[in-house]
Amino acid sequence: MEIEIYGRLFVSGVFISSNHMIEETIASNWTSTEVRVRYAETDQMGVVYYANYLVWFEIGRTDFCLQHGFAYRDMEQEDGLYIMVAEARCRYKAPARYDDELVVRTRLTGMQRRVLIFGYEIYKQRTDELIAEGETVHVITDRDGRPRTLPDKYRELLLGKSEIRN
Amino acid sequence: MEIEIYGRLFVSGVFISSNHMIEETIASNWTSTEVRVRYAETDQMGVVYYANYLVWFEIGRTDFCLQHGFAYRDMEQEDGLYIMVAEARCRYKAPARYDDELVVRTRLTGMQRRVLIFGYEIYKQRTDELIAEGETVHVITDRDGRPRTLPDKYRELLLGKSEIRN
Amino acid sequence: MEIEIYGRLFVSGVFISSNHMIEETIASNWTSTEVRVRYAETDQMGVVYYANYLVWFEIGRTDFCLQHGFAYRDMEQEDGLYIMVAEARCRYKAPARYDDELVVRTRLTGMQRRVLIFGYEIYKQRTDELIAEGETVHVITDRDGRPRTLPDKYRELLLGKSEIRN
Amino acid sequence: MEIEIYGRLFVSGVFISSNHMIEETIASNWTSTEVRVRYAETDQMGVVYYANYLVWFEIGRTDFCLQHGFAYRDMEQEDGLYIMVAEARCRYKAPARYDDELVVRTRLTGMQRRVLIFGYEIYKQRTDELIAEGETVHVITDRDGRPRTLPDKYRELLLGKSEIRN
Repeated sequence: MEIEIYGRLFVSGVFISSNHMIEETIASNWTSTEVRVRYAETDQMGVVYYANYLVWFEIGRTDFCLQHGFAYRDMEQEDGLYIMVAEARCRYKAPARYDDELVVRTRLTGMQRRVLIFGYEIYKQRTDELIAEGETVHVITDRDGRPRTLPDKYRELLLGKSEIRN
Repeated sequence: MEIEIYGRLFVSGVFISSNHMIEETIASNWTSTEVRVRYAETDQMGVVYYANYLVWFEIGRTDFCLQHGFAYRDMEQEDGLYIMVAEARCRYKAPARYDDELVVRTRLTGMQRRVLIFGYEIYKQRTDELIAEGETVHVITDRDGRPRTLPDKYRELLLGKSEIRN
Repeated sequence: MEIEIYGRLFVSGVFISSNHMIEETIASNWTSTEVRVRYAETDQMGVVYYANYLVWFEIGRTDFCLQHGFAYRDMEQEDGLYIMVAEARCRYKAPARYDDELVVRTRLTGMQRRVLIFGYEIYKQRTDELIAEGETVHVITDRDGRPRTLPDKYRELLLGKSEIRN
Repeated sequence: MEIEIYGRLFVSGVFISSNHMIEETIASNWTSTEVRVRYAETDQMGVVYYANYLVWFEIGRTDFCLQHGFAYRDMEQEDGLYIMVAEARCRYKAPARYDDELVVRTRLTGMQRRVLIFGYEIYKQRTDELIAEGETVHVITDRDGRPRTLPDKYRELLLGKSEIRN
């Protein structure tokens, strides 16, 4: 079903075919990143404001890269490559509250020449309760937003411990 | 296709059946809300950080309610009802930049006893370029997060100028 | 008293002498900018989170520039000049709440070759209640953060309707 | 009551005498809290947006309480007491950048029956460079914003390892 979705996705003029998608579906191991809920992240409902989950996804992504051998910061600075977001989704299952200790689990679920797809799960550390899950779709671009092919070195690092499923 | 997605969605113990979904699909008119991009909303890529689009969706929702005859603020304060987010999605088509004048278009695309679905489109005012679109799924709850039926008065106000499609 | 404070301020190696300060104290007219409180800006105390007032100050600054004949955006893009923040202060007098309509009043209170000082007052529109006031001190820099002299054209625009007090 | 708070500061038109201030000045030990700069916290200048330092101060405060034996969360939930912000200040000395590892040092610098003053220093972990310093002044209130006396148990915990200077 994911395939149908991304099959229809045009990203900055790059058509992401559903067939190709299947071939590229992967299932990397999860990396885990701890986050503590900040007061600033709550809203007057007494729970975390919904947009902040996307910030946690980004922290998970940054840490996924780091645990796979490179800093996303260097990818930007040294190679002039950017991981632009083309799509983001989050399903909220239970509220997160101030001072909660959370675990953001991140994995790579799709990869093409110019596209990366990450999956996320957020758990409460104390109870192991799944409170949210989501995906983000990314396109590799240069500084000016033009699509670029992900260099092999990053490809290999990202796939490091992954198993290609097709 | 949307149906399959929400058909599988459990929200705080409320199963949202895909059949019911179809019957409730509506197509309200769009409301329009102007937003000017804040410096705070940009990131080092020189464009708006992706989580902030969800903040704009919320501004669109607030204004949609206002333009349909009630303040969401009063719904919380006077009726103790909350519009919790169960799912959010955004597709990013072109970057928004500092000081851009945007229009957030919002409409109601689905309604059930306890569920509301909103759709959004964000345009650059000057060029009429569509830069993002998205959806959010909500569950009506009380102060303690328990699902509640949306009272008729809100139902009627929200549907005000809408045409039910089924 | 302000003098003593800024007299001790070192900003990126630029000493801001208290004497100079006195000579440069000005009192521009206030510009007014409307802001509506976003749900995202509240916290679990039910009021606006304190850091967001600094975002509103920035909105006031941007609008002050606009109302004085230039877009800060162009200053960055066309002249490569940045208004870096060296100091910020806010005194909170009454809470702002979700959906409140506020007025941010902004004026220029100090100017040197490389330094700008802005003052702010935030009012509730409906009641005219002063809910916060603050100041920000800025240094003009180039893209690499090196202090630069504010070009005459901006100086004149900023001072436009101001009265120099010394 | 505000009067006793700040030496030279006028709050809500009330002059706050400096004498009382001296008697209450304390110098607690610093607590240290690590923070890693998030992409979301940067702006298009390529550095951290200035309001986010106040979020880090809040993280430092939360951790200061925790390291002194209580969770601020419980103070709100169990005792219905809130630490409202009355004033905040930050001096920016060097920019913080994406992925920087920072240390927020926090200490209590003033305490009265209903008032707490915290001081902060933010360092880059790798270079030990001081990049910002600031203060926040707080008033203890109940749920409705009415000033309350800080209970002895919190007073003692906060002062735990502190030396009263007068």
